[in-house]
Amino acid sequence: MSDPSRDTLDTFPNPYPERNFVVVTVAPEFTSICPKTGHPDFGTLTISYVADELCYELKSLKLYLQEYRNHGAYYERVTNMILDDLVAVTSPRWMKIEAAFTPRGGIRTTVVVEHGKQPG
Amino acid sequence: MSDPSRDTLDTFPNPYPERNFVVVTVAPEFTSICPKTGHPDFGTLTISYVADELCYELKSLKLYLQEYRNHGAYYERVTNMILDDLVAVTSPRWMKIEAAFTPRGGIRTTVVVEHGKQPG
Amino acid sequence: MSDPSRDTLDTFPNPYPERNFVVVTVAPEFTSICPKTGHPDFGTLTISYVADELCYELKSLKLYLQEYRNHGAYYERVTNMILDDLVAVTSPRWMKIEAAFTPRGGIRTTVVVEHGKQPG
Amino acid sequence: MSDPSRDTLDTFPNPYPERNFVVVTVAPEFTSICPKTGHPDFGTLTISYVADELCYELKSLKLYLQEYRNHGAYYERVTNMILDDLVAVTSPRWMKIEAAFTPRGGIRTTVVVEHGKQPG
Amino acid sequence: MSDPSRDTLDTFPNPYPERNFVVVTVAPEFTSICPKTGHPDFGTLTISYVADELCYELKSLKLYLQEYRNHGAYYERVTNMILDDLVAVTSPRWMKIEAAFTPRGGIRTTVVVEHGKQPG
Amino acid sequence: MSDPSRDTLDTFPNPYPERNFVVVTVAPEFTSICPKTGHPDFGTLTISYVADELCYELKSLKLYLQEYRNHGAYYERVTNMILDDLVAVTSPRWMKIEAAFTPRGGIRTTVVVEHGKQPG
Amino acid sequence: MSDPSRDTLDTFPNPYPERNFVVVTVAPEFTSICPKTGHPDFGTLTISYVADELCYELKSLKLYLQEYRNHGAYYERVTNMILDDLVAVTSPRWMKIEAAFTPRGGIRTTVVVEHGKQPG
Amino acid sequence: MSDPSRDTLDTFPNPYPERNFVVVTVAPEFTSICPKTGHPDFGTLTISYVADELCYELKSLKLYLQEYRNHGAYYERVTNMILDDLVAVTSPRWMKIEAAFTPRGGIRTTVVVEHGKQPG
Amino acid sequence: MSDPSRDTLDTFPNPYPERNFVVVTVAPEFTSICPKTGHPDFGTLTISYVADELCYELKSLKLYLQEYRNHGAYYERVTNMILDDLVAVTSPRWMKIEAAFTPRGGIRTTVVVEHGKQPG
Amino acid sequence: MSDPSRDTLDTFPNPYPERNFVVVTVAPEFTSICPKTGHPDFGTLTISYVADELCYELKSLKLYLQEYRNHGAYYERVTNMILDDLVAVTSPRWMKIEAAFTPRGGIRTTVVVEHGKQPG
Repeated sequence: MSDPSRDTLDTFPNPYPERNFVVVTVAPEFTSICPKTGHPDFGTLTISYVADELCYELKSLKLYLQEYRNHGAYYERVTNMILDDLVAVTSPRWMKIEAAFTPRGGIRTTVVVEHGKQPG
Repeated sequence: MSDPSRDTLDTFPNPYPERNFVVVTVAPEFTSICPKTGHPDFGTLTISYVADELCYELKSLKLYLQEYRNHGAYYERVTNMILDDLVAVTSPRWMKIEAAFTPRGGIRTTVVVEHGKQPG
Repeated sequence: MSDPSRDTLDTFPNPYPERNFVVVTVAPEFTSICPKTGHPDFGTLTISYVADELCYELKSLKLYLQEYRNHGAYYERVTNMILDDLVAVTSPRWMKIEAAFTPRGGIRTTVVVEHGKQPG
Repeated sequence: MSDPSRDTLDTFPNPYPERNFVVVTVAPEFTSICPKTGHPDFGTLTISYVADELCYELKSLKLYLQEYRNHGAYYERVTNMILDDLVAVTSPRWMKIEAAFTPRGGIRTTVVVEHGKQPG
Repeated sequence: MSDPSRDTLDTFPNPYPERNFVVVTVAPEFTSICPKTGHPDFGTLTISYVADELCYELKSLKLYLQEYRNHGAYYERVTNMILDDLVAVTSPRWMKIEAAFTPRGGIRTTVVVEHGKQPG
Repeated sequence: MSDPSRDTLDTFPNPYPERNFVVVTVAPEFTSICPKTGHPDFGTLTISYVADELCYELKSLKLYLQEYRNHGAYYERVTNMILDDLVAVTSPRWMKIEAAFTPRGGIRTTVVVEHGKQPG
Repeated sequence: MSDPSRDTLDTFPNPYPERNFVVVTVAPEFTSICPKTGHPDFGTLTISYVADELCYELKSLKLYLQEYRNHGAYYERVTNMILDDLVAVTSPRWMKIEAAFTPRGGIRTTVVVEHGKQPG
Repeated sequence: MSDPSRDTLDTFPNPYPERNFVVVTVAPEFTSICPKTGHPDFGTLTISYVADELCYELKSLKLYLQEYRNHGAYYERVTNMILDDLVAVTSPRWMKIEAAFTPRGGIRTTVVVEHGKQPG
Repeated sequence: MSDPSRDTLDTFPNPYPERNFVVVTVAPEFTSICPKTGHPDFGTLTISYVADELCYELKSLKLYLQEYRNHGAYYERVTNMILDDLVAVTSPRWMKIEAAFTPRGGIRTTVVVEHGKQPG
Repeated sequence: MSDPSRDTLDTFPNPYPERNFVVVTVAPEFTSICPKTGHPDFGTLTISYVADELCYELKSLKLYLQEYRNHGAYYERVTNMILDDLVAVTSPRWMKIEAAFTPRGGIRTTVVVEHGKQPG
């Protein structure tokens, strides 16, 4: 399986660009590999955004996220990377990703990254 | 079954137009057809609004939403369409629709659209 | 059973008028009659207020709400009526009523009405 | 859309016929039409069975259940019909269907039908 | 409003008398009057039964239960009365009613009555 | 306040002695005094029984349980005492009490006592 | 048992007065006597505060709250009294008490009182 | 801190030996040390028993369980050890311990041990 | 990554073979590949067993389950395979696996397989 | 076991210092010793922060928190101490710790401490 690539992400034109509406996508089956231990990590990604001219296509988002399955990645870096890729491909007015990982060693971690400011 | 039409929506005069009050309607049995796969989609619509002179009548709202049953529609478009229809028919001071769809391919999507600003 | 009347409501002097404190009363056993179908409606009323000189007495509130038992009333109107009656009797600094009705035809409705502004 | 037909159901050979194991399938997006009112009904089907030589294929089960979408059917009849069809096609050692429908008129109904006795 | 009467209950022929299947009906909007205090009581009725030749019709069950709205009745008696009426009208192979009333004086009561033995 | 006494308990004739039906009473506001520490204990009593000729009256049960408010009593003893008193007063076909106390020192205790065998 | 007295409350010096930190204390076992009916009331107190130079000691808070056990007190008054006592003894930068009482007559009440403004 | 010892456990005479009643004790703050990794383990113990002549005293149970705080012990062994100690000290008619440990490496384990047969 | 192999599983001697005790292991992070679509499947395995002479070691169980990460396997087959491997390695007195998979196409499936009879 | 020391905490360079992102770490297995009673305390720490140049390493955080296992510490002091140590080691743009302790004497306490202001 190849490395995660933003080329996997497809877009379609925002059907209502004249309105600031929010799309929230919850992907509870995210998994990657911890680069330190080699063991799999699991988490739930919640992506919220206000599209500008482009929306991401859901099937392609699913395939893009599956590319992390055998990819080594730390929590903080992987969350920022996914935000960078989605921003690069859709140029949204605003986007936020909340990545809630399952516990390791009795401790669980959530990373929240944001691009721009949510239109009020 | 005919296409969804705002003509199905009935209204009645706002009984307290001198007060900005909020009505929240939750319709958990919304279903339409995915234009790509032909499979049915399911979701819960939460409509909140501050009426101006007209309120929508609940029975007619139910019939209007049932018209989507065999209608092909993407998440983003259908939510905006319903908002447009309800705004056209009731001219509210403010309206918001939150459409939470059930998971597809392990991913679930919520679309939030808003018309105007909630009176403070 | 007579029609709902604000005369049923008793009050007592606010024991701490020098402080803006909030009282929240939840009445989950509200029921009235739908004027259209003749069938009973059921709902939960949540009344929040900051009293000025008078508080409503709880036993009398219960009796007042019971007067709606065989009274025909639409959701929007009944919620505003109860607010009007409670405001007339207690002249509060602020009052809000949230009336959450049980589903009819698969759709459920909540009405939120407010009098004045909550002291900050 | 055609009427529900057991021909839509595909099967595959039970991979472990030497063991009595239970498969539970939960389909929360079942919908049909009430023959009396013409309004849609919604429910969650929970199918449990011990296969003999054949298992039903999940994709075909989904298509089969979708055939009820515009089909008029009472709760009691439709649940028994689905059991009859699944039994006819898979000849299981045991099968049970629990169909939990959403409320109508403030009342909700669940129908539980069973074929044979669960192997102990 | 007249007294509760079993004449209000309609039936229809059991569509699958050759199979012992269970129908569970949950009616969460039951209300009657406490004969002692004159205040309304509220409860949720869960009726389970295996029909013989007749099923009760849901709309008529709803109307029958509404006849208790202004009827004075103690918990134990009303639950047994409803069972008697439903048994008289449908002659089921088995029937059970669980009536869970809301708290009074900080205490809540559930009454469970049964007719016959559930076919195994 | 006097000591708990079974004389406080009133009864009324079982309205359906010909049927074995179960009454479940949940009293979540039970409180007594720990004889060791002098601090109050709190718990929820769940009383289930099949009456023979007599049912306990709920208001008197409430008053009886309130008599424990300033009474010193260990968990095991108090639960058995209440069962003894209720059995003495109502002579039930079967009775069970489950007393779930709130945590002390991070540990919580439930005591379950039973009189006779539940009629099958 | 004596009347509630703020003398029961002990304090200790705030270990970090240079920082505005919030302490939230939840006491779910509060009970007092309704002056009207003589029956016990039950509730959960949630006390939040930013200490200035003094913190209240938890064991003494528990003893202080136990003094209400046989004390007659209305909801609104008792909540304000406890706030007054805690403010008098600790002179906090900010304090809020939320007292959520259990239902009486099917209605439940929460009282929220506040002293000062929470430091931002 | 010394090793866990059954000598820490105190008993008191069963106040109702003539009745088979069940006492359930839930201790959610159990912690010991994993002998392999040296890291702490955490779990919730649920102890159920029917006493014969002796009950264990709760304060001493708490102290006994605290003795495992710095003690190395595998899940299976520690649960059996605690059962052995409690059985040795109280000679119950029946006892069961369910020990539910928190997740390690994404996997959580519960151990259920039983002594004798619960009196029917 | 190699194919799943029972050689990955380590065991240790049952510390209490003289007692029939149950160990329940819950592994919520199981994932494999659907052979039909190539997409990943996710599920929670609950393994319950009464060991005879050998217990499985948890770390090795985790590694064994991780070997399914890139392995193609249908629900029914994979659950039976895991049971076969665990039985082969530990020869338990009884073992049961419940595998609850996440929804696909709006439908979710649970497979329950059992080896032997739970000692009573 | 030595006293808690900030030297135990390791850091790594913030992978995205150009973005203000939030990391939330939940450690539900915190335990220390009450200096007054000698009994263990238990709580859940929720640490949220916006890193500047350094992030804390999770394994070292776990070891650092384990150093409190046999350390005497009051709720208010220990929460402030942990904040001081984490701030000293990572110099974050913002950090907040919420420490929710389990009930003692029926009362539970949460302490919330904050360093700096969350970047907007």
